[in-house]
Amino acid sequence: MISRIAILGTGLLGTSVGLALRANKFSGTITGWNRSPEQAKLALEMGAIDSIATDALEAARESQVVLLAVPIYATLDFMEKLAPSLGPEYLVTDVGSTKRVITEAGTRLFNTPDRAAFLPGHPMAGKERGGASLGDANLFRGAVWLFTDDPSAQRSPQSAELVKTWRELVVSMGSKTLDLDASRHDELVAWVSHLPQFLATALSALLEDEVGDAPELKDVGGRALREMTRLGASPFSMWRDIAHTNTEPIESALAALEQRIAHLRENLRTPQLRDEFEQANRFRRE
Amino acid sequence: MISRIAILGTGLLGTSVGLALRANKFSGTITGWNRSPEQAKLALEMGAIDSIATDALEAARESQVVLLAVPIYATLDFMEKLAPSLGPEYLVTDVGSTKRVITEAGTRLFNTPDRAAFLPGHPMAGKERGGASLGDANLFRGAVWLFTDDPSAQRSPQSAELVKTWRELVVSMGSKTLDLDASRHDELVAWVSHLPQFLATALSALLEDEVGDAPELKDVGGRALREMTRLGASPFSMWRDIAHTNTEPIESALAALEQRIAHLRENLRTPQLRDEFEQANRFRRE
Repeated sequence: MISRIAILGTGLLGTSVGLALRANKFSGTITGWNRSPEQAKLALEMGAIDSIATDALEAARESQVVLLAVPIYATLDFMEKLAPSLGPEYLVTDVGSTKRVITEAGTRLFNTPDRAAFLPGHPMAGKERGGASLGDANLFRGAVWLFTDDPSAQRSPQSAELVKTWRELVVSMGSKTLDLDASRHDELVAWVSHLPQFLATALSALLEDEVGDAPELKDVGGRALREMTRLGASPFSMWRDIAHTNTEPIESALAALEQRIAHLRENLRTPQLRDEFEQANRFRRE
Repeated sequence: MISRIAILGTGLLGTSVGLALRANKFSGTITGWNRSPEQAKLALEMGAIDSIATDALEAARESQVVLLAVPIYATLDFMEKLAPSLGPEYLVTDVGSTKRVITEAGTRLFNTPDRAAFLPGHPMAGKERGGASLGDANLFRGAVWLFTDDPSAQRSPQSAELVKTWRELVVSMGSKTLDLDASRHDELVAWVSHLPQFLATALSALLEDEVGDAPELKDVGGRALREMTRLGASPFSMWRDIAHTNTEPIESALAALEQRIAHLRENLRTPQLRDEFEQANRFRRE
C-alpha cells in the first residue's frame, strides 16, 4: 500500500527510520533530502535511502508518505510549504519532540478532504549526538512512538488508509505506539524527557566550571557521573526549538525540581531524607 | 607478602573485592564476616571468601590485612574496636565513601609505631543496589581507587610494607589509584559522586509523585530517563552516613545546582540557553 516514502531530513532520526524500514522488509522506494548534502550522501551509502533528492518539495510530490525529520521550526516551515501542493492521496508525518504547535499547524493546514493527511508523531528514541553516521536500524526497537492525532481530521479514504499503514510500519520497526492529546503529550514529555535533558545540561555545565580543568577528576565519578551527564552532549540546535515550543511545561517541571532538591538539601540530617530515598526507590521498583 | 585477608562486610563491595582478588591470582586465604549470616554464606558460595568468621575481631586478629567494607559509622565503630588489639604487623583499610571523618579517626587510633597501619581508601565503583549476590570480579576494572593517607603516619617497616602490597593488589584488580588529601577528597566526591546521587534521588522522588501511578508513562521516557533515575534505587541505609559525614560540601553542591537550574529555567527563550548547552557540551567533549 505504501510504496514511495520521502524522508526530509536524513539526520539521526531520518536515517534510522530508513534503516529500520529496510531491516524490517519495507520493499518500496525511499528518497532522502537533507539541507547538508553530505548527510544525504552518508544516508545513501548506509542504505537508509535509495536516492538523494535535491528538491525537497518535488521529492514530496513524487512520494505517498512524507516523513519530516528536521527540527521543530523547520518542520513547521515544511508544513506551510507542503500543504498547498499535496492532495488527499498523501500522508505527511513528523518526529518532532513537542506536539502542541505542530498538531495545531496540522489541523490548520491539513486533514481536510481535499488536502493531505497530517499525523503528528514522536518516537521516544534518540542519542545525545546527531547525524546520519549514528543512524541505527534498531533505534526504535522497544521504544514508544507517540501520536497526537487531530480528532477532527476529515480524511479521504485514501489518506486514512495511509495513516493506518504508516502506523503498521512504525510497529514493524519495533516500537509500541501510544496515542495522546497534544497538550497532554507536551506536559508528559516535559517531565519524562525535557526535564532529564535540561537537568543533565545544568549538571554538566556546573561540573565543567568546577572540575572541567582537571580531566583526571572526571574519571573519579565513574559510571554514575557518565550516565548523569551523557545528555550534556546534546546539541543546542535541537533543544532550542523544544525550549521555545514547550516553555511553560518545562519551566514548571524545572521549578518543581529546584524545590525538591532544596527540600533534600535542607534535610540531609533529618529523618525526611529517608522519606525522599524511599519515594525515589518506589519510582525504580521492579 | 600478604597471605591472610579478613573482609568485614561481605556486601556488594566486600564480595567484589574477594572475587577480584581471586580472579587476579591472589593465593592467600580470605575470611569473611557479615552482620547478616546469609550474606556471608552467599559470598562463600560465590567463591569470594574461603571461610566465614562468626567473630569479626577474632577474624581480624588472625589476618594481616583487615578490609572494612561496611557503612561509614560501622567502619568507625570497627576502627575503635580494632585499634587496641592490633599491633604494627597489621594493616586496616576501608572502602568508605567519605574520608575526612575516617581519616581523622585513623590518625587518632592507628599509624603509630606500636599500632596497626590504617590506609583510608575509596573505590569509585558500585551499583545502585547492594548485597553479595551482585558481587562482581570486574567491578573495579577501569575505576579509580582513591586513597587519603595520613602524611604524619609513623609506621613499622612491616606495616609500611603491607600498605605498599595492598596498593599493588588494588592495581591488580584493575583500578587506577589516586592520592588526595581527605578534605579535598570529600569536596571532590561531593561534586562528582554525591551530587549526581542526591540529584537522581530528587528527580526520581519527584517523578514518582508526578507519573508514578501510570507505569506506561515511565516507558515513554526511554533510555535517557532510565539512566537519569537509575541511582534513585540506591539505599538510604548507605547514603545516610554519607549525608551525615559530608553535609557541608553536599549542601554547597546542591545549592549551586539549584541556582544553575534556575538560571537555565529563566533563560529558556534567551540566547543564554546556547551558552549553557555549549558549556555542558564542553564537559562531554571527547
